[in-house]
Amino acid sequence: MSHNTIGHLFRVTTWGESHGPAIGCVIDGCPPLIPITEAEIQVELDRRRPGQSRFTTQRREPDTVRILSGVFEDETTGGQVTTGTPIALQIENVDQRSKDYTEIRKRYRPGHADYSYDVKYGIRDYRGGGRSSARETAMRVAAGAIARKIVPGLKVRGALVRIGEHEIDRSRWDWDAIGSNPFFCPDPVMAENWETYLDAIRKDGSSVGAVIEVVAEGVPPGLGAPVYGKLDQDICAALMSINAVKGVEIGNGFEAGRIRGEDNADEIRLDDAGNPVFLSNKAGGVLGGISSGQPVVARFAVKPTSSILKPVKTITSTPEETEISTKGRHDPCVGIRVVPIGEAMLAIILADHYLRHRGQTGRSAGQSAGQS
Amino acid sequence: MSHNTIGHLFRVTTWGESHGPAIGCVIDGCPPLIPITEAEIQVELDRRRPGQSRFTTQRREPDTVRILSGVFEDETTGGQVTTGTPIALQIENVDQRSKDYTEIRKRYRPGHADYSYDVKYGIRDYRGGGRSSARETAMRVAAGAIARKIVPGLKVRGALVRIGEHEIDRSRWDWDAIGSNPFFCPDPVMAENWETYLDAIRKDGSSVGAVIEVVAEGVPPGLGAPVYGKLDQDICAALMSINAVKGVEIGNGFEAGRIRGEDNADEIRLDDAGNPVFLSNKAGGVLGGISSGQPVVARFAVKPTSSILKPVKTITSTPEETEISTKGRHDPCVGIRVVPIGEAMLAIILADHYLRHRGQTGRSAGQSAGQS
Amino acid sequence: MSHNTIGHLFRVTTWGESHGPAIGCVIDGCPPLIPITEAEIQVELDRRRPGQSRFTTQRREPDTVRILSGVFEDETTGGQVTTGTPIALQIENVDQRSKDYTEIRKRYRPGHADYSYDVKYGIRDYRGGGRSSARETAMRVAAGAIARKIVPGLKVRGALVRIGEHEIDRSRWDWDAIGSNPFFCPDPVMAENWETYLDAIRKDGSSVGAVIEVVAEGVPPGLGAPVYGKLDQDICAALMSINAVKGVEIGNGFEAGRIRGEDNADEIRLDDAGNPVFLSNKAGGVLGGISSGQPVVARFAVKPTSSILKPVKTITSTPEETEISTKGRHDPCVGIRVVPIGEAMLAIILADHYLRHRGQTGRSAGQSAGQS
Amino acid sequence: MSHNTIGHLFRVTTWGESHGPAIGCVIDGCPPLIPITEAEIQVELDRRRPGQSRFTTQRREPDTVRILSGVFEDETTGGQVTTGTPIALQIENVDQRSKDYTEIRKRYRPGHADYSYDVKYGIRDYRGGGRSSARETAMRVAAGAIARKIVPGLKVRGALVRIGEHEIDRSRWDWDAIGSNPFFCPDPVMAENWETYLDAIRKDGSSVGAVIEVVAEGVPPGLGAPVYGKLDQDICAALMSINAVKGVEIGNGFEAGRIRGEDNADEIRLDDAGNPVFLSNKAGGVLGGISSGQPVVARFAVKPTSSILKPVKTITSTPEETEISTKGRHDPCVGIRVVPIGEAMLAIILADHYLRHRGQTGRSAGQSAGQS
Repeated sequence: MSHNTIGHLFRVTTWGESHGPAIGCVIDGCPPLIPITEAEIQVELDRRRPGQSRFTTQRREPDTVRILSGVFEDETTGGQVTTGTPIALQIENVDQRSKDYTEIRKRYRPGHADYSYDVKYGIRDYRGGGRSSARETAMRVAAGAIARKIVPGLKVRGALVRIGEHEIDRSRWDWDAIGSNPFFCPDPVMAENWETYLDAIRKDGSSVGAVIEVVAEGVPPGLGAPVYGKLDQDICAALMSINAVKGVEIGNGFEAGRIRGEDNADEIRLDDAGNPVFLSNKAGGVLGGISSGQPVVARFAVKPTSSILKPVKTITSTPEETEISTKGRHDPCVGIRVVPIGEAMLAIILADHYLRHRGQTGRSAGQSAGQS
Repeated sequence: MSHNTIGHLFRVTTWGESHGPAIGCVIDGCPPLIPITEAEIQVELDRRRPGQSRFTTQRREPDTVRILSGVFEDETTGGQVTTGTPIALQIENVDQRSKDYTEIRKRYRPGHADYSYDVKYGIRDYRGGGRSSARETAMRVAAGAIARKIVPGLKVRGALVRIGEHEIDRSRWDWDAIGSNPFFCPDPVMAENWETYLDAIRKDGSSVGAVIEVVAEGVPPGLGAPVYGKLDQDICAALMSINAVKGVEIGNGFEAGRIRGEDNADEIRLDDAGNPVFLSNKAGGVLGGISSGQPVVARFAVKPTSSILKPVKTITSTPEETEISTKGRHDPCVGIRVVPIGEAMLAIILADHYLRHRGQTGRSAGQSAGQS
Repeated sequence: MSHNTIGHLFRVTTWGESHGPAIGCVIDGCPPLIPITEAEIQVELDRRRPGQSRFTTQRREPDTVRILSGVFEDETTGGQVTTGTPIALQIENVDQRSKDYTEIRKRYRPGHADYSYDVKYGIRDYRGGGRSSARETAMRVAAGAIARKIVPGLKVRGALVRIGEHEIDRSRWDWDAIGSNPFFCPDPVMAENWETYLDAIRKDGSSVGAVIEVVAEGVPPGLGAPVYGKLDQDICAALMSINAVKGVEIGNGFEAGRIRGEDNADEIRLDDAGNPVFLSNKAGGVLGGISSGQPVVARFAVKPTSSILKPVKTITSTPEETEISTKGRHDPCVGIRVVPIGEAMLAIILADHYLRHRGQTGRSAGQSAGQS
Repeated sequence: MSHNTIGHLFRVTTWGESHGPAIGCVIDGCPPLIPITEAEIQVELDRRRPGQSRFTTQRREPDTVRILSGVFEDETTGGQVTTGTPIALQIENVDQRSKDYTEIRKRYRPGHADYSYDVKYGIRDYRGGGRSSARETAMRVAAGAIARKIVPGLKVRGALVRIGEHEIDRSRWDWDAIGSNPFFCPDPVMAENWETYLDAIRKDGSSVGAVIEVVAEGVPPGLGAPVYGKLDQDICAALMSINAVKGVEIGNGFEAGRIRGEDNADEIRLDDAGNPVFLSNKAGGVLGGISSGQPVVARFAVKPTSSILKPVKTITSTPEETEISTKGRHDPCVGIRVVPIGEAMLAIILADHYLRHRGQTGRSAGQSAGQS
């Protein structure tokens, strides 16, 4: 049992507070001989880093990652590889502004973890949200950069598909557009609309929710397990563990609750090589908790950040009634920076299930009974 | 790591196939001295049992539960209580019709786990779905009957809030109506509509999806943990582990992705006794992964069963292209019988987190720093 | 965390009390397609069964095992194989004599778990020792029968090497002798001495301790893991979890604490095929927590049963001072029947580590870097 | 499942190689509000540090520990306390001599993990033993310093009771003597003998084994759990996980295998307050896997380090036959520095079981049914 660990065979344990000296993680159970460098992890971290556009918080953290253990030079290639022992990653916190936290120390921000942490532990590091800060998610992205390399041929990508009232038009979906706008938006037209929309919200000192979609291609069939080791169950848990997430769905998700059986079937044919071909993917790549070989598709909703300019009623820890409002740097839509985090969580779960499947069955990639 | 176990300190491990001799579960870590009888568990099982109306499968299983271990007579009260050792529950399978399974043995039913199980394991007990059958959920309900007794004052209830196109009107919500219709529907007017609607679907040999809402009242504040031990994360995983579930949300869920921060705040006041009172519950009773003392509210979507009369394209394990259709007994809306299962999963997670919280902090019920 | 589960990927959860309706276990994570029958498990159970000679308790339990789930007919061979889903095994308790337990109910037997269970849980099933009875170990042996089949080529055997003052002469070690005496004794001469020795103890109403040695041959190199996943650590824990065990050692064990480095080295040469050959096995087949390919050798000490004729001072739960003595059936040397239990525990740990190693590295059997 | 984690509710995960930039650990699940400072941890680390006498390796590591997360200022006392979130501890490696590792890189040292690591992972950080180095144990001692504070009133101490052929005389046992000699020896006379004995071994370039005894006083009754969560089982595993340990025993241990039941009974009386008093402690404080309230006593044997001057036969990874001998700094008896490590492991297991017991039963300290 582990409050700060995710995964079973590929295990990621994170630690650190927003305004402590550093944050870090330990990855245990990583297979040996996986090539990995700090630079590769840094690429992923840079995608999540705040302060890259006016739509994300202006906190400036270089977020420079160091690998402190678990890698060594491979004599054959000369490159650095994992050794199978724990990989410790670490990022120093350098932008801990010597801010006055008197106000936040006593006043519970509605929608934040302030009250519930205090009730649970009787104490909390209130500086910048402490352990409940989204700063922890930097380590998820870092660990995800390694997780991405475990399943051969795996490709995990994410996109923002909704900001508040505005959802993308899926007929315009273009993965290449993702990198061309500050929103990870696959719909170039909508990206422009969002710019105007979000500018207004930002100027209001308000915030807005979002929906993110993450897609994994190259998932071998057979990952997951029946009953309580379902692949989609673990994906949902991983996404739900991200700060501010309030809902998760696989494949057609909640839509499945509205339609009939004949509209929900993913029919199957054979391709020329005799391999199964699904004619649709309403299931989102998971059947009975086990991957089918189709792309794994999940979506999750992120609430608007509770840090807004408009004063809201709350209480102090004393307790007394009061109000609170947030000035200064914050994300008008935290959903934007959540995209690489969602990708990382999906990659971590897939890496874990890949090793679990291999452990139980001895097979790295699924083969049907007829094929084996 | 455990494919067939849920929970960390309150642990439920289930076993058994649909058409094997029996199904069962082992509950490990249950506190001692909890009064429990077979009759109490049976009450919950009877709520889930098929064949109770024309809207659920006509498979008839008396589902008589036996307690095989972990209980003993309390000398003080004379009643039966838990001893703290593993509780084994068991139900014999008595309605294993000697059906001809030739067809299902080779033909992969789209939307079912047939194909993915075969790919993963190279073998499966295909009779009645084997391990992937919803029959396993009987043990969830049985274990849930014990879980309900762990957190003092806890009340867990569920309701069907949508069948296909028809959602309830929340202004008519009446918990007392739940027992008066065959749908666990809290809206008496909608229950009547559903009857007509579902009759038509049943006669078509079709099926339809549904949405279930589960609510836990009396949850002490402080349950859950930051980061990867979030209460809502574990609730979502538990609900997602139920067969046919495709989406899960907490509080206002996906709605949170559509609104602004000022519309999402749960403001806080003090009552006359100086205790926090939340003016709304958009968060669904969980803040930063930790319970706030408000009711915990979750919803989840169940897909329409894939067993329908209309033939759908599929393949055999040979593999060859073919078609499949389902005649005979089945649920037109599996969502109905899922209501007590959802309640059970919520109760199990709350019991587990109650013990986890108590283990780490030594406190059974949360108190704010100011109160302690 | 699991009080009644052993193993991580090959997981065995046992349940049941000595005088309840049944005892059982659930094996989760077993690989699919392993051939297994009830008869094969029964063979192992019969080796442990009491009442087979005058040196073991006269309690008569047929101990007939049933497989309730997790197996299915393999279409290719027609034989029964595992499916990868949980395997439930069960034995009904048939010799629950309607004995008067008034005395044992209130009186704490020194050396037994009576007092500590009562302190921990505030209640216990005192009939025949309840959960703390050695009856639980029947399920270890049953699970071990399956575990023995996981690592290809593995052979696990055990022997009694000491009863009380009398240790075997290792120069006379003969594995074939094990089955020819009622002690699992590999030294035929000592077996005869033990017969006289133990008869005297039995007639005295006394008991005596013993030392068991278990040996696994065919263990591939590479099983185990550094630091807290050491193979010898897990073997020691598994053996220590057997009732009445007070000490465990690997290889030369405590002797290692008495000698010098030059007397402790297992030197290495190459055989004609270029494979490593160790010139001795003081390490007991484990180096740095990881198997070396040599036989894994462990020994453990079992205390004399505390149930003896001679009255000993104790207290009641009231509490009051009193005395207690044991008449009737009991084992003069419980160590005898522990031999197959020790073998089972060793097999379970090796099966688990085999799957763990395969999960992390993708290799089923170890190969040195130079060989791969 | 976790190769580098120990504990279930009080969880310690260590990372780092002997010659990497740093070593560290993450403690998850620690209760909040436990006062702790770097200075307190440093005191324990200094007891283990090498280079303090001529009998331990001359490697000089200041071993300065830093707390990087999980603590905060307690407003009431002004002191630093735990917050309930993960505690990250870290020590920089500063004495990584730029040594030539060519020889050790290819040559497998008998008795070391060189060969088995290479076989398992296909790669290893060979510098100074890498992950298999005893350097990892510094983090055990650091974590143990926090673990010691979890169980109120707990006192954990250790002593060296044997070096090679020379065992202490228990009639001279004096805990105060421990700090007055370089061996943690409780027998002042034997300490002087050891000095001469070990000087000779050191000058020979040889090494010798040892036996350590660890004792925990103030252990509340009720800690532990039946079957696979036994307190003594977990203690044995924890001690066995320490480098070079080959055997572990609880209470009278292997002696129990040699004696009769009447010589093994710990009889019970009542003191004036009506509390149980055991007349001996052959059980070592554990009955049926659960603490009895007596001191918990365990002993473990440490082999002589394999690094000796005398050349021993071995192979290279190529593989080719060769010889190896060790010059330069090493411990003639690694058992000495293991004493504080053994204490730390015992403290960690007791802390973990304390939280586990509290989680399941809601009681922090055991009370008998009659007393509650």
